[in-house]
Amino acid sequence: MNLADQKCESGVDPLKPEEAAKLGEQTPGWEIAEKSIERTFKFKNFVEAMRFANRITAIAEEENHHPDLHISWGKVIVELSTHSVDGLSINDFIVAAKINRLMEQA
Amino acid sequence: MNLADQKCESGVDPLKPEEAAKLGEQTPGWEIAEKSIERTFKFKNFVEAMRFANRITAIAEEENHHPDLHISWGKVIVELSTHSVDGLSINDFIVAAKINRLMEQA
Repeated sequence: MNLADQKCESGVDPLKPEEAAKLGEQTPGWEIAEKSIERTFKFKNFVEAMRFANRITAIAEEENHHPDLHISWGKVIVELSTHSVDGLSINDFIVAAKINRLMEQA
Repeated sequence: MNLADQKCESGVDPLKPEEAAKLGEQTPGWEIAEKSIERTFKFKNFVEAMRFANRITAIAEEENHHPDLHISWGKVIVELSTHSVDGLSINDFIVAAKINRLMEQA
């Protein structure tokens, strides 16, 4: 199933680096760090950036998996990580894929 | 006049450190760094943090002076700086005072 159509679940396992890299193929634009994935989105002003942050919030609430958001004029940096595994889980890639889909719908 | 009742203006001058320190007396909770001021606000969950970020956005738009926001679960770090002076101006303290007033109204 497409990552963007999957649901986050609790009790997930940490991903091995090769597993994260494989999932990363389905989340273009996201950079994989040791314990998180991150993507920068650009907008034409502050309000548009916040509008995007609010749409991300709806996804985060639905999936009960919340990112860190760094919002500045015309820019949102989204950072995803799974605290329960102190690193990356499939949940991060599921939310990343859903966020990418938001952009396609924009 | 109370800082929170003032309006941001363009063409402001950079503040000297002692001027910034003096204005900082009117913005309790804000830490003064060399080129910015910053305050951390705590909330009970992600949605409450985003709600606060949206209320800050309304102030920022009205004053045409926008912060950087770092939002995570139950937390918003607000960072204010004046790009036109590459440091601090009175505008930063005006917006900080207005944000503090938001908290008093919450």
